[in-house]
Amino acid sequence: MSLECIFCKIVKGDIHSVRVYEDNEVLAFMDIGPVVKGHVLVIPKKHHNPMMEAPPEILQKLITVVQLIAKAQMAALQADGINVSQANGSVAGQVVPHIHFHVIPRFASDDYHGKWIPKSYDTPQEMQTFADRIREAIR
Amino acid sequence: MSLECIFCKIVKGDIHSVRVYEDNEVLAFMDIGPVVKGHVLVIPKKHHNPMMEAPPEILQKLITVVQLIAKAQMAALQADGINVSQANGSVAGQVVPHIHFHVIPRFASDDYHGKWIPKSYDTPQEMQTFADRIREAIR
Repeated sequence: MSLECIFCKIVKGDIHSVRVYEDNEVLAFMDIGPVVKGHVLVIPKKHHNPMMEAPPEILQKLITVVQLIAKAQMAALQADGINVSQANGSVAGQVVPHIHFHVIPRFASDDYHGKWIPKSYDTPQEMQTFADRIREAIR
Repeated sequence: MSLECIFCKIVKGDIHSVRVYEDNEVLAFMDIGPVVKGHVLVIPKKHHNPMMEAPPEILQKLITVVQLIAKAQMAALQADGINVSQANGSVAGQVVPHIHFHVIPRFASDDYHGKWIPKSYDTPQEMQTFADRIREAIR
């Protein structure tokens, strides 16, 4: 664990997050600055960064959860598609240096077209409602 | 195999590609419309689409090769970072309906900032040179 890492603090529970999935090694929670509402982050519980230096087994566990989340977003939010993205290095747009996969539900009506503009939920309850729907659709 | 699928034709060899890695299940080759030079596509040899419907084992194999390619791009091209992206559905920007991960080397000097503008190599030989360097750095 990195003491300074915001995602390690989220894993530990020292910083609040709205979780949609977790197991012994992986945590998925709502991005508080969604580029599209329903945007989820999938991270390893143990601190690894960048993706190139992680044990392949960790990446394999992460991509399996990315798929679970994507399937749940499709079903629960009636999404029309999914974008998955993962950045390594500040030059690549990575802000938090702890591996994370963005899983972004897409809708014909959304205004995200590769422009990474974090938005916000209208209310905390709205984010919670999205999370509840995704969580309940995970199978 | 999907008879109409351009990536299935690339796997089969009916359409030319510049390969940097392959094993029994996964193929990695140069994107002919790189958003940054050195951009590689990683695909399953068997036709699967979208990511949500693939066997998890296939995704695990793909992400392992994504990591191999990213490490090689860092070493061979002296990249400053890596973006990984994967789209599902035309609404998400997916053009070829056969699962593919984009592995994009990033440089402080590049002009890619999430704007998906495919470029081209100056000559076929330039693409070959990038491919040779990446291929030789895979370990």
